[in-house]
Amino acid sequence: MKVGIVGASGETGQSIANGLLQSKEAFDITGFVRPASIDKSEVQNIKQQGVAIVPFDLEAPHEELVKALTGQDVVISCIIPFAADAQNALADAAKAAGVKRFVPSYFGPISPPDGVMALREIKEATLNHVKKIYLPYTVIDVGWWYQSSLPRLPSGKIDYAIRFPVANMYGDGNLPSALTDLRDIGKYVARIISDPRTLNKSVFVHNETWTQEQIFTLLEKASGEKVPRDYLSRADIETSIKVARKAYYEQEQSVANLLGLAVMQYPHSVWLRGDNLPESAEYLGYLNGKELYPDVETIKYEDYVAEVLAGNGKAPYAGRVFGFETKKDDGETN
Amino acid sequence: MKVGIVGASGETGQSIANGLLQSKEAFDITGFVRPASIDKSEVQNIKQQGVAIVPFDLEAPHEELVKALTGQDVVISCIIPFAADAQNALADAAKAAGVKRFVPSYFGPISPPDGVMALREIKEATLNHVKKIYLPYTVIDVGWWYQSSLPRLPSGKIDYAIRFPVANMYGDGNLPSALTDLRDIGKYVARIISDPRTLNKSVFVHNETWTQEQIFTLLEKASGEKVPRDYLSRADIETSIKVARKAYYEQEQSVANLLGLAVMQYPHSVWLRGDNLPESAEYLGYLNGKELYPDVETIKYEDYVAEVLAGNGKAPYAGRVFGFETKKDDGETN
Repeated sequence: MKVGIVGASGETGQSIANGLLQSKEAFDITGFVRPASIDKSEVQNIKQQGVAIVPFDLEAPHEELVKALTGQDVVISCIIPFAADAQNALADAAKAAGVKRFVPSYFGPISPPDGVMALREIKEATLNHVKKIYLPYTVIDVGWWYQSSLPRLPSGKIDYAIRFPVANMYGDGNLPSALTDLRDIGKYVARIISDPRTLNKSVFVHNETWTQEQIFTLLEKASGEKVPRDYLSRADIETSIKVARKAYYEQEQSVANLLGLAVMQYPHSVWLRGDNLPESAEYLGYLNGKELYPDVETIKYEDYVAEVLAGNGKAPYAGRVFGFETKKDDGETN
Repeated sequence: MKVGIVGASGETGQSIANGLLQSKEAFDITGFVRPASIDKSEVQNIKQQGVAIVPFDLEAPHEELVKALTGQDVVISCIIPFAADAQNALADAAKAAGVKRFVPSYFGPISPPDGVMALREIKEATLNHVKKIYLPYTVIDVGWWYQSSLPRLPSGKIDYAIRFPVANMYGDGNLPSALTDLRDIGKYVARIISDPRTLNKSVFVHNETWTQEQIFTLLEKASGEKVPRDYLSRADIETSIKVARKAYYEQEQSVANLLGLAVMQYPHSVWLRGDNLPESAEYLGYLNGKELYPDVETIKYEDYVAEVLAGNGKAPYAGRVFGFETKKDDGETN
């Protein structure tokens, strides 16, 4: 099976490349990366392991995209979906190239299609486009990353491993949410894209469910440090969302405003609404990846925390600035 | 099982009321109808058969809607979805009333969620709202009505039975589409709402698939008259859609402009894009009602045509003007 990963140098792209490389299936993998990313160590690393690397410009004309994707059985999009246009163009090219399964860039927590997460609405716009052109697809959502779940320790000891430290406890901190280790995403993806049951379906995978209070308590026990709780009420976060919505929808639909909105809408959806839970996913029509692949061995949350405390963690998006200042935000990798 | 039908005096509402009345299941049926429709013969007719009739104003305050719907296990919306607001308010009330299954007003041909049918997009806005509030639901689509499938005969003999005569043959007339007799909708609905497999799912039911050319030929054979073909090319209808889109999206989002767009988008989707077919429905995630309920006995298309030629047909929407001129379009029944 020939599998193309668009945006193979990003966090999700790396996890997927590794998952496919380590799978029992004999995947023939191509990493489509922006010309500017070709020399990145992440790209060279997967290249050495056997991933063909092809420079790929999402803003190239349709015919060039079609030519690049022709021959791929599966195309997995790992670009950050800041706007639907780039992904829609990728979907059009995949359709014309006869791709048998397109995986749009979801790879996030569960949420309803509309009215909760602006970022989700952009993803849905691409999915709607995919459906309009009858492109075979699979949506894969993965819950909330372990790697974005920890607060800082007062000692600063784990700062090195957390790019986005959790600053607040939302509500009373007792609503669970589904967590996945970033490194496990690829293991699930390798199974999902080889499985006819998942064609034209959405699949939700996750490792474990934890509440914020459980996470804070675990970290306290494992570190011996006291982690202060800075509670944020539902009313306060909903007020913040209102302000951020105004900036994005009424002032400027910039990436900075979209992310400003996302950092409020994510915890609201994940920790207060309970959208990112297996039962919500089931209601929303997702297949349950844990039930489909009970034999996938994944990293335990407790082991992840121990690893971080032992100094062996790795911050996601290290050294990344998300290209706020460039015009090429669409091409950024997830 | 207590079932409330909102808009029970409309064409779909009537079919559903009859389907539930004739079902083996012991449904306790309430017809929620606009105060202005209480005295209509359709309403009095189902009342005599045992349907409780409750006057219902969709624009009433939330608390009143909740009170009216409290106690219903299933609420079926048969209002014409000219705008999402009225149905969203109904969904909010159903959620607060603890309704166990809400059936939003779909009951049409299959089409992708976005970019093909403006009317569909309004329906999807309500479905997205339903999902946002985690209201248990079932979407039911029924294909294209037999009752809207026939062209006029030169003799004028069947004009009495066709409210919307088919004026054109689209493309070469050889793409099939799924057809259902309006009177059969209720039979399917009675099965679907009693079936736990259809909860939080979309279901597609239809009787038969026919091409326009097959329909015209059948009518010619059965009537002995020659039916002229007035072919309309894909390019011509796409031009007409562009004009109608402009009127609706750029000039005024009125019901008249929406219907002006719908009369172009429907044949484009149904007869040219091939959206209204069982295989499209499967791709779009629908359960197949024919497979779920193979024992449902439905009216054959040939029998419907014979019935119309024998003078025993009945035009849908007889005497209706769709209230173009009123402000209460939302409350119109489907």
